[in-house]
Amino acid sequence: MVGKNQIKLIASLQQKKFRQTHGLFLAEGVKGIAELLASDFELHHLYETADVFPEVSSSVKTRISEADLKKMSALSAPNNCLAVFRIKKPQPIEEKGLVLALDDIRDPGNLGTIIRLCDWFGIKELVCSQETVDVFNPKVVQATMGSLARVNVHYVELPAFLTETSLPVLGTFMDGENIYARQLPKAGVIVMGNEANGISAAVERAVGRRLTIPRYGSMQTESLNVATATAIVLSEFRRN
Amino acid sequence: MVGKNQIKLIASLQQKKFRQTHGLFLAEGVKGIAELLASDFELHHLYETADVFPEVSSSVKTRISEADLKKMSALSAPNNCLAVFRIKKPQPIEEKGLVLALDDIRDPGNLGTIIRLCDWFGIKELVCSQETVDVFNPKVVQATMGSLARVNVHYVELPAFLTETSLPVLGTFMDGENIYARQLPKAGVIVMGNEANGISAAVERAVGRRLTIPRYGSMQTESLNVATATAIVLSEFRRN
Repeated sequence: MVGKNQIKLIASLQQKKFRQTHGLFLAEGVKGIAELLASDFELHHLYETADVFPEVSSSVKTRISEADLKKMSALSAPNNCLAVFRIKKPQPIEEKGLVLALDDIRDPGNLGTIIRLCDWFGIKELVCSQETVDVFNPKVVQATMGSLARVNVHYVELPAFLTETSLPVLGTFMDGENIYARQLPKAGVIVMGNEANGISAAVERAVGRRLTIPRYGSMQTESLNVATATAIVLSEFRRN
Repeated sequence: MVGKNQIKLIASLQQKKFRQTHGLFLAEGVKGIAELLASDFELHHLYETADVFPEVSSSVKTRISEADLKKMSALSAPNNCLAVFRIKKPQPIEEKGLVLALDDIRDPGNLGTIIRLCDWFGIKELVCSQETVDVFNPKVVQATMGSLARVNVHYVELPAFLTETSLPVLGTFMDGENIYARQLPKAGVIVMGNEANGISAAVERAVGRRLTIPRYGSMQTESLNVATATAIVLSEFRRN
């Protein structure tokens, strides 16, 4: 059984201010929950409409009705389970190898897709500007498909971080070096910009090397979507 | 002025069966409409709440209220204009250079993003299986950001097309050749598979060369999103 107040609290975690107040976030989907359970994220409580995770201790799980799950869920068609995990304390950023930095990414689907890309390309540290969408937004958690378990996401004052890091800082612009033609470093911070405005002026000042993905088609194609541009850039750094 | 029946007809174009009956589709967003106007798509009618496109003849445009626009629009927050274009008659597929083929892509956002990628990488011909989401779905048109004006999209019996084409057929699988290590052809059909199931068995039989994007991160990352995988594959073919 689950009380009205508990349902209300869990549903409130769809909003950032309540996630911050409670230090908790929602995860839905069997695969995503399974990967978070296997990670160093701490389970707060699991709600199931069936015995989906028999390995989870009964002290931290509750069987609920589909109607109650629907009230908690951020999805229009909820699964058979929903988990509440604790938000981790901020960790130091490990400044070695390739680090990805995001300057004000606003779309939850883009952030989720980029976290999946980091996981695929073995990028452990993702550094986000304060204006970037919250990684614990349920749509982001959903879009990461479990990759959140293996990528450390940090929110920082991005211009200050980039100015202070000892790693080289590289950014993608319309007027940079051809990314296919140059040798790319094995270690560095790669900056990707906002969906509409690209890299902001304050961040641009901290960028040491400007890179461009060459366009092969029409001049009218203004830009690539930021998640597909990130895919191309990370692929290019790794294949080197 | 715009009558009730006309509003109803236009709103019905959000559904595939009515698009097919009338041979018309919706486009929203100033940039997307501008690019379609500049292409060989034929404008059926333009609806504006302000004088957005002064160059369009008054015989094919109507000034409407925001309330009426909202009734026609597929968007929750409509723009100041909406255009209805004619669906083009099927054209022959130009089988030269690089051609992209999609085996049952279901998500409108993925198809739209892939059309934008084709435009960026100068791929003119996109061949889709019959089960692939309709390119004239308003969400696809929206996600293409105008690139639909420059990419020819065809719906075919994909296994038959791939069996009959004189171009080499390449597909991405989990167990193919490392795409970074091999020379890739300048001409060929590149097949990308369904979001959940990858390339179907019938299509797989027509694939001559199996390619893989190597994974650098954890073994738990099951797959890349199909739009990001397409970005990496097209980048790799073009950089060669």
